Amino acid sequence: MTMDALEAMYTTRAMRRIKTDPIPELVQKKILDAAIRAPSGGNTQGWRFLLVDDSGVKADLAPIYRKCMDSLWSTIYKPRIDAAEANPEDPESIEFMKLVRSASYLGDHFEDYPLILFGFSQFDTSGGSIFPAIWNAMLAARVEGVGSALTSVFQFRLDEMNEVLGVPEKGGWKFSACVTFGYPTGRWGVAPRRPAHEVSYRNSWDGELGFEIPEPLWSME
Amino acid sequence: MTMDALEAMYTTRAMRRIKTDPIPELVQKKILDAAIRAPSGGNTQGWRFLLVDDSGVKADLAPIYRKCMDSLWSTIYKPRIDAAEANPEDPESIEFMKLVRSASYLGDHFEDYPLILFGFSQFDTSGGSIFPAIWNAMLAARVEGVGSALTSVFQFRLDEMNEVLGVPEKGGWKFSACVTFGYPTGRWGVAPRRPAHEVSYRNSWDGELGFEIPEPLWSME
Repeated sequence: MTMDALEAMYTTRAMRRIKTDPIPELVQKKILDAAIRAPSGGNTQGWRFLLVDDSGVKADLAPIYRKCMDSLWSTIYKPRIDAAEANPEDPESIEFMKLVRSASYLGDHFEDYPLILFGFSQFDTSGGSIFPAIWNAMLAARVEGVGSALTSVFQFRLDEMNEVLGVPEKGGWKFSACVTFGYPTGRWGVAPRRPAHEVSYRNSWDGELGFEIPEPLWSME
Repeated sequence: MTMDALEAMYTTRAMRRIKTDPIPELVQKKILDAAIRAPSGGNTQGWRFLLVDDSGVKADLAPIYRKCMDSLWSTIYKPRIDAAEANPEDPESIEFMKLVRSASYLGDHFEDYPLILFGFSQFDTSGGSIFPAIWNAMLAARVEGVGSALTSVFQFRLDEMNEVLGVPEKGGWKFSACVTFGYPTGRWGVAPRRPAHEVSYRNSWDGELGFEIPEPLWSME
């Protein structure tokens, strides 16, 4: 399949509600082959991609993932959840609680995703040598009509995750990202964003950008 | 302009040799608007994008950048340079020295890039909430025929870089990436990569992937 590059970038939003249909081998190949096209510092390609589609492995990972989600809610996300519960009618609260429900859904259905990708990087401290590859994988999936969601919450229980996956202690391999894949039940669309001109400067921090981008420069219509 | 998503992903290779022609405003808008379409953890969009096109600012940054390059050669890259100089006929050495010359070219011509993007992230430790955005910016530039190169060597002298750009000490903003842009003098192409099946596993580390991808799944022909 083919798709316009802008359509792929603009409509690759987190797709956590999916069908359990398996991801065909050709689509898996396209996902991995796109990933390795990404740049890496010094072109070292210090990456490894681990696909999980075995139900036993998923069943071992799922309870670990759900414990990580509990940690997320009770630590990093706690202030935002408290704020949202204090002002449930606030549009920002509504948007955030939608995200919380969607992320919870992923945890509750971890075993149901037909394909899960784990990305590892070697000696990469910034993430700059692995996340372009991860994002390419997600864009390539989008081109094939496959939804994805990026999550890093395994960070809370890396030892347990590494043990299930057999990640070696030596070699400097660091877990960077987990991406779930599946054919979506919902519709593709452009996710809401704060406009670029509100988060961009020119020539110095807070420097006037010189233009505004009030509407997305690509749309479904 | 439009372009197939795979063509954009497969042919966005580091383009350091460029013309000095300015980057039109519409292209700048497309770069920034694509960047903000990327995902971020909890959709916090904790990013800032700083475009530099002022010759004075570039002149202030260039010597800092070149000192960072000197640090790179004498530290992280030293073992690879020594190895390449010891075996100059080795294909790997030849490839690596090409990269060294290309990276040196960028440093030598830092002032000549018509547009330079600095990406900052807030409270993002993994890079997962900024590098998809940075890579989108590079892909959007590619669609418009604009080459880019990602470099993070300012890490060696962050204080000096931050001072020139006026990055505030408060707010938790962290420099993530610097991307040079320009219309390339050379040709677009698919950069060589180690095949995906050599860096991918299934269900466990070292687990048999189950297929091979001997040739790129997209090509110029």
